[in-house]
Amino acid sequence: MAQHIEEDLPPNLACLKNIDTLLRCPICFDFLNITMMTKCSHNFCSLCIRKFLSYKLLCPVCNSPLTEQDLRNNRLLDDLVVNFHDARQQLLKANFESPPISPKT
Amino acid sequence: MAQHIEEDLPPNLACLKNIDTLLRCPICFDFLNITMMTKCSHNFCSLCIRKFLSYKLLCPVCNSPLTEQDLRNNRLLDDLVVNFHDARQQLLKANFESPPISPKT
Ligand SMILES: [Zn+2]
Ligand SMILES: [Zn+2]
Ligand SMILES: [Zn+2]
Ligand SMILES: [Zn+2]
Repeated sequence: MAQHIEEDLPPNLACLKNIDTLLRCPICFDFLNITMMTKCSHNFCSLCIRKFLSYKLLCPVCNSPLTEQDLRNNRLLDDLVVNFHDARQQLLKANFESPPISPKT
Repeated sequence: MAQHIEEDLPPNLACLKNIDTLLRCPICFDFLNITMMTKCSHNFCSLCIRKFLSYKLLCPVCNSPLTEQDLRNNRLLDDLVVNFHDARQQLLKANFESPPISPKT
């Protein structure tokens, strides 16, 4: 599982919040790490879903029957996690370096 | 296929370029539309890959053998396309409304 990152987004970057949420694993709530996709189109970290399947042969999101053999790597998600993380850091940095102009008093 | 969008990103939003590229179909170069993922983990618009498979039973990216039955919906990508498009519009708008402070002459 990826390292935990919990920075609040400033209001002008709040539009990135949905993307942040979509890129997280529904089991560990961290960014997806070695993403595996089920037949029912749900995505989990490889370790998280394999651990879950050792208890129950169901998708943790929708309860469809599921085995390890049904899992498929979703590598585009791994690339998106890396690039989203980088972009967010750069936007936060740019945002910090040029704060909004405050009205003169 | 989604409508074509070709806005150049200003330098302070150039960090979004990689995400933009990742969310596009390798056949039509537009944003992914009803994303289908192959066993080899490559993603295409549903219409683009079905049209391609009517000519050749191969993945257009890596040439692995591929049939329609091997395709799996990758719905998270569809959600990411919608949310990325919205976020980019909002960032471009915010950027336009507060341009960088130009030095006094
Ligand atoms: Zn996880
Ligand atoms: Zn499911
Ligand atoms: Zn396409
Ligand atoms: Zn392929």
